[in-house]
Amino acid sequence: MKRYETLAEEITQSIQSGVLKLGDRLTSVRATSTNRSVSPSTVFQAYYLLEARGLIQARERSGYYVVAGLKDFPPELEVISRPNGDSTSVDVSQMIFDVLQSTKTRDVIPFGSAFPSPLLFPWGRLGRVMSSALKNMDPWSTVDDLTPGNANLRRQIALRYMVEGFHVHPDEIVITNGALEALNLCLLAVARPGDSVIVESPTFYAALQSLERIGLQAIEVPTHPREGIDLAALALALERHKPKACWLMTNFQNPLGSLMPEQKKRDLVALLTEHDVPLIEDDVYAELYFGDKRPLPAKAFDTKGLVMHCSSFSKCLAPGYRVGWAAPGRFTDAVIKQKLTTSLSASAPAQAAIGEYLAKGGFDRHLRQLRHALSMQQSAMMQAVLRYFPSGTRATRPSGGYFLWLELPEEINALEIHRQALSMGISVAPGPMFSAKKEFKNCLRLNYGHPWDEHFESAMQVLGRIVVANQIEHKTMP
Amino acid sequence: MKRYETLAEEITQSIQSGVLKLGDRLTSVRATSTNRSVSPSTVFQAYYLLEARGLIQARERSGYYVVAGLKDFPPELEVISRPNGDSTSVDVSQMIFDVLQSTKTRDVIPFGSAFPSPLLFPWGRLGRVMSSALKNMDPWSTVDDLTPGNANLRRQIALRYMVEGFHVHPDEIVITNGALEALNLCLLAVARPGDSVIVESPTFYAALQSLERIGLQAIEVPTHPREGIDLAALALALERHKPKACWLMTNFQNPLGSLMPEQKKRDLVALLTEHDVPLIEDDVYAELYFGDKRPLPAKAFDTKGLVMHCSSFSKCLAPGYRVGWAAPGRFTDAVIKQKLTTSLSASAPAQAAIGEYLAKGGFDRHLRQLRHALSMQQSAMMQAVLRYFPSGTRATRPSGGYFLWLELPEEINALEIHRQALSMGISVAPGPMFSAKKEFKNCLRLNYGHPWDEHFESAMQVLGRIVVANQIEHKTMP
Repeated sequence: MKRYETLAEEITQSIQSGVLKLGDRLTSVRATSTNRSVSPSTVFQAYYLLEARGLIQARERSGYYVVAGLKDFPPELEVISRPNGDSTSVDVSQMIFDVLQSTKTRDVIPFGSAFPSPLLFPWGRLGRVMSSALKNMDPWSTVDDLTPGNANLRRQIALRYMVEGFHVHPDEIVITNGALEALNLCLLAVARPGDSVIVESPTFYAALQSLERIGLQAIEVPTHPREGIDLAALALALERHKPKACWLMTNFQNPLGSLMPEQKKRDLVALLTEHDVPLIEDDVYAELYFGDKRPLPAKAFDTKGLVMHCSSFSKCLAPGYRVGWAAPGRFTDAVIKQKLTTSLSASAPAQAAIGEYLAKGGFDRHLRQLRHALSMQQSAMMQAVLRYFPSGTRATRPSGGYFLWLELPEEINALEIHRQALSMGISVAPGPMFSAKKEFKNCLRLNYGHPWDEHFESAMQVLGRIVVANQIEHKTMP
Repeated sequence: MKRYETLAEEITQSIQSGVLKLGDRLTSVRATSTNRSVSPSTVFQAYYLLEARGLIQARERSGYYVVAGLKDFPPELEVISRPNGDSTSVDVSQMIFDVLQSTKTRDVIPFGSAFPSPLLFPWGRLGRVMSSALKNMDPWSTVDDLTPGNANLRRQIALRYMVEGFHVHPDEIVITNGALEALNLCLLAVARPGDSVIVESPTFYAALQSLERIGLQAIEVPTHPREGIDLAALALALERHKPKACWLMTNFQNPLGSLMPEQKKRDLVALLTEHDVPLIEDDVYAELYFGDKRPLPAKAFDTKGLVMHCSSFSKCLAPGYRVGWAAPGRFTDAVIKQKLTTSLSASAPAQAAIGEYLAKGGFDRHLRQLRHALSMQQSAMMQAVLRYFPSGTRATRPSGGYFLWLELPEEINALEIHRQALSMGISVAPGPMFSAKKEFKNCLRLNYGHPWDEHFESAMQVLGRIVVANQIEHKTMP
């Protein structure tokens, strides 16, 4: 990230957090230059960038003023979901496939996509590292890298955990074909057809698909948009359903973007330990934080080997390489067996390349750029929501990841919005995708993982118009 | 393959097929040179090679004589297995894991391994092709290559089928994380926990592991060492058990190496069509034929979309890349959904690299070398069996693949041989691995997929001694 971008980001954060309010005057270029020890031209560049983004405005002979403040973001969604606590057979796949299929076409605006833009990743460097890894490849590595996987890669992953402040032994790490396979293998290691599994409400639809595929019952537990799953409700569900596992995301949950506070993670692990229920923790978004450090996973607070931690490089470094992992605690042997009989191993060249990339450094620099891009794109999308969507629209305010969750006015049918938007070349992810009970009928998940441009801006405008039109139509219905 | 190697191989085939018999004199170097239009030094090199392999011997002033003939190969195993036809819950995994674990150590002689030697594959060229594919990679390909997979790769696979004489549309091809995943996805697409599935007896243990994992019943059907599954027995099993699928290998079956004749493949497809039972056809060894052309799969004779054909590049081009595929006929959509929810996609760089390698040519040249190496190694192992194993030992005579299946004298316990051999640094695959009923207790599968050398020769000698010692011990037991 260039210096002026860093400065612009800091000012954006101040605006978003309310430190700088609408109408406030920014400190002069000269004063900022002195305070921050940067050149005046760096300050100018930062101010130009913020102006271009519509956050500040220059007034002649007077300086720069904040023109979009905290109250200019859409109202925050704070209502917690209230599923009724029954277990539900899952049958959502076809709708999900239809929605996902629509995001594979390049000329569709990918607000419904599950992936960040592939343009945000260091392909050149990854390719060079892989080429060099292939040149030096020992043919026997194809045997050595069989599950549990490439030794260097597993060590590098363990090293990153150590630096972040907790310990996972490389022997506990099982390399998989992406996090999705890791999650599935963990599930298969602890649950059999007919068993119940706790998920969040709303939850990542792939969890629902996995439950459906294996013939498991879903117990949906209320989840707060800011702080994650409701522990009191979870405690009740544990008592009532005796589930075989709890599958959730503690960091930047998909779709809500919620970030569970550290103490709550400790309490979560304690609660599950008390009931001896394994936690399948999907932690794929943790590296995409906008704050000052990586939030710890629940895994960091596990002393009994009960947390089956899963992650991957697909969201933060190398989409498409399909390199993920599980650190399944006391279930490690069971997960290794599941992996060996499901798909034998992860791809050896991809494992070697990522291991070498991590060893050579550069990952953190890439991550800083990626986080910066995502946080900027989030601002742009939030402002577009405010600008184009009807009042009554509420949005989450995630501090990481690349999803915004919108609650539209109650009368709106998100599936209808999805259909109409798609006919205009815009994909969205309608709320019912994220619930076995097909709740959240007036919610949308929007992806801001793509560099913002005028096409995205006008697509948001179109989307807003569609929502407004649906609202009017509903009101004028006889 | 060099010219002298080709010549040596032809002569070996003549010896194995009985055209040249023990004691026969080979044509003189001069005559052979004229007949074959090769230089005398090429003939000399071929004869030296055959002499080094113990197949012929020079007698002073008299020429070269065959010293190992047809009757010098171990007696052929022709007895067909006779499982009792019940369905069986499967519980073999732990034994299989223990055996497989032993083959991961490089200093163990890998007769028990499931893989050919990694030294037999074109790593240099594959690596260069992958480097160039990465250099030209469009970041959006990580989205485009999502399941069903890389378009060029799928086209190249379809083209190979076309050249071999049958048609599979690229749209039917779903790229997977190796053939094992393809087979599992096909199984999941047609069977639910509690259902029955027909397998061969003996069968590839991974089929048993998959059945066990999903909670399916195995129906083991007798299988002939030369011609594959018994169709009369299969017809009875279809009547009696109403299975949801039949999982088998028509070409170079693992572990028997049997090759189903073409007419029998037609009959097989007709029989299954009559019962409307899908065939999950594992065809990973087809390219490893020693004859003059690739044997067709049952898929070639399917007109109803009932054959779910699975294969991969793991045995013939790129072990460890984990690129396989399914061509699942009318179940293609179901398999795509299974793939998307199981592990999303195969690794994009590996898909791109193999697609480009196939497009650039060189695969067939590599395959010729690989087949030649395997057929030579088979001869060496067969002779070692004859030399070191007790009389009463019978062996299969596969015309492709890299497994030899031995039936030892009845009193021998293969699990005991496995344990004793492993303590001497030699792995073998004991017969009970290949049966849900743990039959074949006096059988071994030996891998000849590794370049033969004096270590392998002495390992065979040690193995033979262990078998003999077990035989004597059994006979002298009170």
